[in-house]
Amino acid sequence: MEHILSWIRRRRPGASATATQRNEQDTPEILSGLLEGKTCGAPLCAVFQNSDARSEDYDAFRFVPRPGHADFTAYIKTDGANDFRGGGHYSGRLMAPLVFAGALCAQLLEREGIALGAHIHSIGPIADTPFDPVHTTKEQLLAVQQAPFPAVDAEKGKRMQARILEAAGRHDSVGGVVECCILGLPAGLGDPIFDGLENRIAQAVFGIPAVKGVEFGDGFAAACASGSTNNDAFYYEGNTVRTRTNHNGGILGGHATGMPVLFKAAFKPTPSIGIEQESVDLSTGEPARIRVSGRHDPCVVPRAVPCVEAAAAVALYDLLLGGKR
Amino acid sequence: MEHILSWIRRRRPGASATATQRNEQDTPEILSGLLEGKTCGAPLCAVFQNSDARSEDYDAFRFVPRPGHADFTAYIKTDGANDFRGGGHYSGRLMAPLVFAGALCAQLLEREGIALGAHIHSIGPIADTPFDPVHTTKEQLLAVQQAPFPAVDAEKGKRMQARILEAAGRHDSVGGVVECCILGLPAGLGDPIFDGLENRIAQAVFGIPAVKGVEFGDGFAAACASGSTNNDAFYYEGNTVRTRTNHNGGILGGHATGMPVLFKAAFKPTPSIGIEQESVDLSTGEPARIRVSGRHDPCVVPRAVPCVEAAAAVALYDLLLGGKR
Amino acid sequence: MEHILSWIRRRRPGASATATQRNEQDTPEILSGLLEGKTCGAPLCAVFQNSDARSEDYDAFRFVPRPGHADFTAYIKTDGANDFRGGGHYSGRLMAPLVFAGALCAQLLEREGIALGAHIHSIGPIADTPFDPVHTTKEQLLAVQQAPFPAVDAEKGKRMQARILEAAGRHDSVGGVVECCILGLPAGLGDPIFDGLENRIAQAVFGIPAVKGVEFGDGFAAACASGSTNNDAFYYEGNTVRTRTNHNGGILGGHATGMPVLFKAAFKPTPSIGIEQESVDLSTGEPARIRVSGRHDPCVVPRAVPCVEAAAAVALYDLLLGGKR
Amino acid sequence: MEHILSWIRRRRPGASATATQRNEQDTPEILSGLLEGKTCGAPLCAVFQNSDARSEDYDAFRFVPRPGHADFTAYIKTDGANDFRGGGHYSGRLMAPLVFAGALCAQLLEREGIALGAHIHSIGPIADTPFDPVHTTKEQLLAVQQAPFPAVDAEKGKRMQARILEAAGRHDSVGGVVECCILGLPAGLGDPIFDGLENRIAQAVFGIPAVKGVEFGDGFAAACASGSTNNDAFYYEGNTVRTRTNHNGGILGGHATGMPVLFKAAFKPTPSIGIEQESVDLSTGEPARIRVSGRHDPCVVPRAVPCVEAAAAVALYDLLLGGKR
Repeated sequence: MEHILSWIRRRRPGASATATQRNEQDTPEILSGLLEGKTCGAPLCAVFQNSDARSEDYDAFRFVPRPGHADFTAYIKTDGANDFRGGGHYSGRLMAPLVFAGALCAQLLEREGIALGAHIHSIGPIADTPFDPVHTTKEQLLAVQQAPFPAVDAEKGKRMQARILEAAGRHDSVGGVVECCILGLPAGLGDPIFDGLENRIAQAVFGIPAVKGVEFGDGFAAACASGSTNNDAFYYEGNTVRTRTNHNGGILGGHATGMPVLFKAAFKPTPSIGIEQESVDLSTGEPARIRVSGRHDPCVVPRAVPCVEAAAAVALYDLLLGGKR
Repeated sequence: MEHILSWIRRRRPGASATATQRNEQDTPEILSGLLEGKTCGAPLCAVFQNSDARSEDYDAFRFVPRPGHADFTAYIKTDGANDFRGGGHYSGRLMAPLVFAGALCAQLLEREGIALGAHIHSIGPIADTPFDPVHTTKEQLLAVQQAPFPAVDAEKGKRMQARILEAAGRHDSVGGVVECCILGLPAGLGDPIFDGLENRIAQAVFGIPAVKGVEFGDGFAAACASGSTNNDAFYYEGNTVRTRTNHNGGILGGHATGMPVLFKAAFKPTPSIGIEQESVDLSTGEPARIRVSGRHDPCVVPRAVPCVEAAAAVALYDLLLGGKR
Repeated sequence: MEHILSWIRRRRPGASATATQRNEQDTPEILSGLLEGKTCGAPLCAVFQNSDARSEDYDAFRFVPRPGHADFTAYIKTDGANDFRGGGHYSGRLMAPLVFAGALCAQLLEREGIALGAHIHSIGPIADTPFDPVHTTKEQLLAVQQAPFPAVDAEKGKRMQARILEAAGRHDSVGGVVECCILGLPAGLGDPIFDGLENRIAQAVFGIPAVKGVEFGDGFAAACASGSTNNDAFYYEGNTVRTRTNHNGGILGGHATGMPVLFKAAFKPTPSIGIEQESVDLSTGEPARIRVSGRHDPCVVPRAVPCVEAAAAVALYDLLLGGKR
Repeated sequence: MEHILSWIRRRRPGASATATQRNEQDTPEILSGLLEGKTCGAPLCAVFQNSDARSEDYDAFRFVPRPGHADFTAYIKTDGANDFRGGGHYSGRLMAPLVFAGALCAQLLEREGIALGAHIHSIGPIADTPFDPVHTTKEQLLAVQQAPFPAVDAEKGKRMQARILEAAGRHDSVGGVVECCILGLPAGLGDPIFDGLENRIAQAVFGIPAVKGVEFGDGFAAACASGSTNNDAFYYEGNTVRTRTNHNGGILGGHATGMPVLFKAAFKPTPSIGIEQESVDLSTGEPARIRVSGRHDPCVVPRAVPCVEAAAAVALYDLLLGGKR
């Protein structure tokens, strides 16, 4: 449980100057599945109560959807019956259970020798030192998880935070990219075609609100490369086949190669901003103006780092151990 | 059937100077599910026989995996029992059935007023005119599908082809990006969290060999934007809510907004190249050298265009109509 | 909600002389998914707290499994980590959420003109008047649901209750059969082979503890019939095709015929009895004796009637409406 | 392959006097997944061509559905587009692929020490010696599989065959019951509630045409028993917990107990009979008469024995090994 809570704390609001000032304790209440500190085979059910939500902050969005947010599509999908309070089922708050599940899966993966960790690859144009695609170690991943701000290079991290605060000062928001690295996956893991590592990880990661792109290895940059530079040469290190470079992000044909698996997720800027925007009033069918005044993150990326790890952990657990009974 | 065959022809090898010179007829043989020209409710089973495969071209790869290709991971996954001939289950040839299925799904989607089409967004640094995220029409999508080379701007298409042939002349290969646009999706389509439009489309598109990245709307570029510029303002056009811009690619909260849905898929350069590369011999545990001499595409992107459409069509069919009985 | 609570009340313990004297209020607490009395599109989460469980009643079974009960298999499956209190994940109490879900599905099915209801077909050798396989009406199904004891013939119901009390007096238990009838299913419903009506309903109904057999229409009796007597002749009633008899229980080829769908579920006698039995002590590896002294139903069948309805409703909802978005 | 073909031969028509006189060779053609006699990780695709089907035998049923057969529901489900030839997707012929898959799964289960076999429990009222629920051995299961007629007691088998031929002489048909026994399942196998052994096996077995009931252990007879007689007492045999009786068919709480798993499947009489019956003409909306003149089994039960084994093998493989990668 302590390991799970440490992941949840990294996502918690109110923890730093760059995050929303809501103060959720985010302590899960276990309803079933745990007996004397161990899982007991029954479904593990944890509940996160909302302790500091101010539903009145959301009244304005019931009929006037925030541009860039799910308010509009949720309203249409449910014919107006959607729970608009706190963004309802589209709130970033839904990530608390994902992180809970991911932290648990990460523990189970660790028993198989698998470690994973993520950092902020960039906030707008300010980029952190990327993970080394060939030599990243478990210790390096752990160090970022324990750092106060999830950047490899603390100096870059400070510049990122300044950038976020600067946007907040303008009542605006910024986006960014999270990079995740997975070590120790057995070569061959992943199923063909639609159930490969890329497919399953992407399906999970796009479940995090605000993610608009996912790429593995060099990703979109590979589209500008030549085969001769993009191919990763094989060589033997002892009895193990390794690759000298890792442009393919540790995945070939949907299966793990045994090298580090690397992927990036692009986050758009938070749509909830304090600048007045054009919208519509769905109750009257008239144009409307909206300015979002609640306590919202000017940038979700720092808090999204454990969410990306969690989504990857859940997808990998399912591929690797999900069927073991 | 004529519609399906027209999609398959667009993917067929041997059709142009930039593609592999293998000459597969790619005519599916229907084993079940079709009666008097109509589907009859039984599973539709189509078989594509390999008529012009030269398995001996692949003997060299049985134990010496091509860098960047699935030869290695397939060997490890199956303890060496994998079908190495023609790349086996990892051959681009597996896309013929996907295009068959996608063309069929596209017909069913068309009855619901949904149209989709793709083009080559770029080959290396040479970019086509992108689809207009707000105003693209069904006719424009159809025009690209009927063009001899799948580019909106024929002039750019010629430069792309020249680039491919230039790489082929160096026995090398190039990658590129495919952009796909879907019109007519009902607002609200898509399920929350892990089964949204982005999740399902990405899961399907990563099933196409060589895809290393998928992004929706502005994707990775959105990570550098501000909320104030990235949000798409809502307005009424008659009784319909539309957005003035479409940075979010027609998707909010995993659901369709009713605007065009746009996504891009990044393809790495074909790993099979005629330049000598470093590899290993899995039968001896020794280093090895490999030069791929078979007939391979110097660039898979032109033939991948209908595959991207097909993957999207299959995912959408499943979300929209899969459960209807 | 009132409709759902009425179903839950029918399953509630403590309601009659023949049921366990535990007094659970069985009032679900709604955590999410409901807004202003209507479902809002988010997952509907209801929690049933245990208000009157006496965990000490179960201490004796931790290492000495009750014969005929899941104590043993749960212990083996989880290497002894199972939640033994109250039977844990194998408690009949797990049926409260099933009935909740089933009552909700039944409401949604009712909008499609589908009604379903069950009664006790027999307790041991004492049989109720069976449902008429051709002429049963919605009103008849409702009447049994509203009766104080779920038998069509109240006189037979009294004899059943006497039989249960007589077994209870001997500290023993009895089994029985529940019959369920579904009206209004559209002809053709059900998917081929493994996803037909029989497959899906059976999969759901075997999820109720103590069910050991499921049969449709004449079921096992059909194995002794001839084709000439078992076939149901078709005829037109107006424009509707009906069958003169209904030996096949309204299902042919896994699909609904449009006639009433009828099935029976066999329940074994409650394994928890007050008579001393032979068992083992899993902590010592020695033989043991056990006498179950808690408050257990001498017959689960009366309380299982809404569970059978609920399992059928969930399976039908999934087949009929599950894919509609 | 030889093992698979031996299973297929047991299901083959034309093999005995009691079966249809169609003479299908039933030799599967392997399209993919097999390389040098071993599976290679790609999907294993086998095709059974129809060599001796006389489609004209079925013309009469296109609009005049056979009572008791899926002709009617298939027609309604597909708005008349169904493949009526040979019963289409509802033909017993679909069992050839099931037996192929089941024989393969049985081989994989055998490596885990699991054996399974079935026999005809009864044809109408004529019953074979049932399997001993406690002491049945692997050799006994194999002996029935190798017998010319699948009965434990050859004398009873002769009486069954006489009964079938007698019905055939009257142009009528008979039903029966198949009993299946599974040895060597590890205690604890099966998942809770809807994915237990009973649920999964029942879902698979109801996929065999003509099955109308499935029961485990004493099944419907248990509904007439008392807890004191139906409970199976536990005892230690060395370090293994066994039960003295096996009324529960080797399953408690959905999980295997480690004792033999026993279940029975009830088959209705073949609906295709040579006696004139009442039906309707779906093309005219008028009453019609039908007499089925093709070559049909007067009893499907003997040929269904390997189908029941196959369905169980597929379900068990999925539960036990399906997730291993």
